Amino acid sequence: MREDRPTLTVAIVGFGTVGQSVARIICDGEHPSLRLSHICNRQIERKRVGWVPSSVVWTEDYGDILAADIDVVVETLGGLDPAREWIQNALTAGKSVVTANKQVIAHHGPELDLIAASNGQSLRFEAAVAGGIPIIQGLQEGLAGDSLFRVLGILNGTCNYILTRMETDGASFSAALEEAQLLGFAEADPTADVDGYDAQAKLAILATVGLDRPVDVTHIPLRTIRTVEAVDFVYAARLGCTIRQVSRVEALPEASGVLASVQPALVPRASMLARVEGSQNIVIVEGRFGGETAFSGFGAGGEPTACAVVSDLEAIARRGPRGSYPNAVSDAPSPALSAVVSDFVAPHYVRCVVADRPGIIAALAGVFSHYEINVDSVLQEPGWDKHELPTVITLESCDSAMMERAVRELAGFDFHVRPPLWMPVLATGDTG
Amino acid sequence: MREDRPTLTVAIVGFGTVGQSVARIICDGEHPSLRLSHICNRQIERKRVGWVPSSVVWTEDYGDILAADIDVVVETLGGLDPAREWIQNALTAGKSVVTANKQVIAHHGPELDLIAASNGQSLRFEAAVAGGIPIIQGLQEGLAGDSLFRVLGILNGTCNYILTRMETDGASFSAALEEAQLLGFAEADPTADVDGYDAQAKLAILATVGLDRPVDVTHIPLRTIRTVEAVDFVYAARLGCTIRQVSRVEALPEASGVLASVQPALVPRASMLARVEGSQNIVIVEGRFGGETAFSGFGAGGEPTACAVVSDLEAIARRGPRGSYPNAVSDAPSPALSAVVSDFVAPHYVRCVVADRPGIIAALAGVFSHYEINVDSVLQEPGWDKHELPTVITLESCDSAMMERAVRELAGFDFHVRPPLWMPVLATGDTG
Repeated sequence: MREDRPTLTVAIVGFGTVGQSVARIICDGEHPSLRLSHICNRQIERKRVGWVPSSVVWTEDYGDILAADIDVVVETLGGLDPAREWIQNALTAGKSVVTANKQVIAHHGPELDLIAASNGQSLRFEAAVAGGIPIIQGLQEGLAGDSLFRVLGILNGTCNYILTRMETDGASFSAALEEAQLLGFAEADPTADVDGYDAQAKLAILATVGLDRPVDVTHIPLRTIRTVEAVDFVYAARLGCTIRQVSRVEALPEASGVLASVQPALVPRASMLARVEGSQNIVIVEGRFGGETAFSGFGAGGEPTACAVVSDLEAIARRGPRGSYPNAVSDAPSPALSAVVSDFVAPHYVRCVVADRPGIIAALAGVFSHYEINVDSVLQEPGWDKHELPTVITLESCDSAMMERAVRELAGFDFHVRPPLWMPVLATGDTG
Repeated sequence: MREDRPTLTVAIVGFGTVGQSVARIICDGEHPSLRLSHICNRQIERKRVGWVPSSVVWTEDYGDILAADIDVVVETLGGLDPAREWIQNALTAGKSVVTANKQVIAHHGPELDLIAASNGQSLRFEAAVAGGIPIIQGLQEGLAGDSLFRVLGILNGTCNYILTRMETDGASFSAALEEAQLLGFAEADPTADVDGYDAQAKLAILATVGLDRPVDVTHIPLRTIRTVEAVDFVYAARLGCTIRQVSRVEALPEASGVLASVQPALVPRASMLARVEGSQNIVIVEGRFGGETAFSGFGAGGEPTACAVVSDLEAIARRGPRGSYPNAVSDAPSPALSAVVSDFVAPHYVRCVVADRPGIIAALAGVFSHYEINVDSVLQEPGWDKHELPTVITLESCDSAMMERAVRELAGFDFHVRPPLWMPVLATGDTG
């Protein structure tokens, strides 16, 4: 260590899995420029542990943190409230903030960053996206010399765990979800993960940081993975593919808008996205000069996420709070939001489960014909129960908005046992 | 852009492929904080292009650069001399330096960094390792919160191109090399690439930056890929593997030493290393808290390398020269070099090409038995010419130093048509 590196006084607010891992790393002796001074949590007595230095102040009163002589507040509460307000209070009290909170940054990042800047402080959030993978710094600084136009990836380890279990073991969605819950990979209420809200928040942050196109996070279209069935992996395999929850955002060249979506998609088995297994994450970015660059690793878990928090603390220790504003959420003084467009053009996969009778294929094909979508193939594996028969149709490249309308119409037929599922089929060039 | 970001005046020294790409990106208008002021090259008249602003000064006299009011010198000369001296002169003249020069940084990085620091300047070299992949920043800052103990990767795109051509088309080494030369991926003299010197320099830099263990670059053991033959890919495939030039360095826990090597190795087909094809690069790092994190992309080429240079320039523009010293080659005031140990323990692959006669297998097995190395399998594909018969022996886990001695002994038998080749067989856990 250079001797001119100052010591940074750190408070941890929220002493759950990530907060505890941050404390452990700071107290481990390998980060002499960081000093843990306060830990704040509800019912603090319940949280006390013996392995932190006795000098650390334990409190349940956030006012103590604001009043204390602390350089940086580490926020690991999660959720929008009270985290957003507490972050703002820390910044206006002249403290920098390091957060793992994707929701706060996705919804309020640009405004909080302005507050940080006007108070001479910094707001860093490496841990908010893809846990231990240093993607925020990679986009903001490592690839600052390039002009990035696309970011895609697997941003939710829970979904990836579930989908790879379904792929390798033929497990049903609910069995794979239950297993993920037992192993602690999925929450009791899995909505944020499986319905895409978690990935949506991360993708909104990547759009701002990587493409300099801030978006209203709620405008990014979501599609759940709950409707993916084991049989879809059988048909995906026949098409040389597997299924992943894919998040992607692309700068539209002609306007300030972006194409964005979070949805299950077929990806070629040989692609980088397909090769991401279990709870791992990947982010693939594409730039005008540097081509495709990929970052992969552990996207969640207390220790990888805590590493990202500590990396942010080290950056502030080295550069001082104002030295770190390149990590600002947006450079613009009052960032205008980019319009989100969701009509990707791609080949598509549609799987119906029908009570078989003559004329079904003709009826389905008729709808696609009506929407001028060309059918590429009709697949029916032998050996299925005729009363609950999976029927797969693949379609040539078409607009996903048109596709959605076509599927809505064909869902009206009375032969469906349950609603049809449709997904884009991504090409090798689009999946790393 | 925030208005408090200063404009950085930049000189490019060495106007070859990378230097020209840097100029093009700077002049492209997307980097308002950078201003190109000088271009320096031998026979400068030959180099003049019309697309740089008329304000740019063209010179063949490096003294002009030192005398001018320039913030940063971009050095893209390559080679040790005069680059090392010129970098030092720029730093002592109060200019920061951004370089793509792996040899200078591998051999003289720590001393040049001290000169930079004592002159209040910074020395950055993102472009020196793995081209467009932001691995230096990723190690120094993005993963600063972790304790890294291993770095491995594919650091030479030329070797990877040659080996993947041999793998996919059954091409001979010389045919694949010739193709790489025709395509501009390999130099007329391919020594630096195929014999491992290029990767060796990059690995030395990664040892310093990633593991904080600076080494004498010349102490990292090298083994050429020239001796790999098409038949080795046939046998590797039988073993579920392919062959890559693998660079790896690992901190020894008990001492300040490192295990390091650059050599061809068998890697499992399903591993991340095997999946890197053509001229791509990958760096996989392993940390105590964050587990395995991978960075992949274009490791060479004018534009990706130039992106890395411009990212370094942007970092200096944002932080000021002193703000960027975390990217210093080493934090230690006078870095002690770590001892390099090369005796990895791994299963091994040995391929002999013999003029067949009875007793060969027994003779080979006898040598291994003498060195107490257990034979795992003996492989002989049918259909080969008996006068030039490939014979493969796989060996259970053993020390590579012991292996080398055993192979040296068995090379003394008179039945060899050409010298035996041996390579470690890396396990999935060691190859990402």
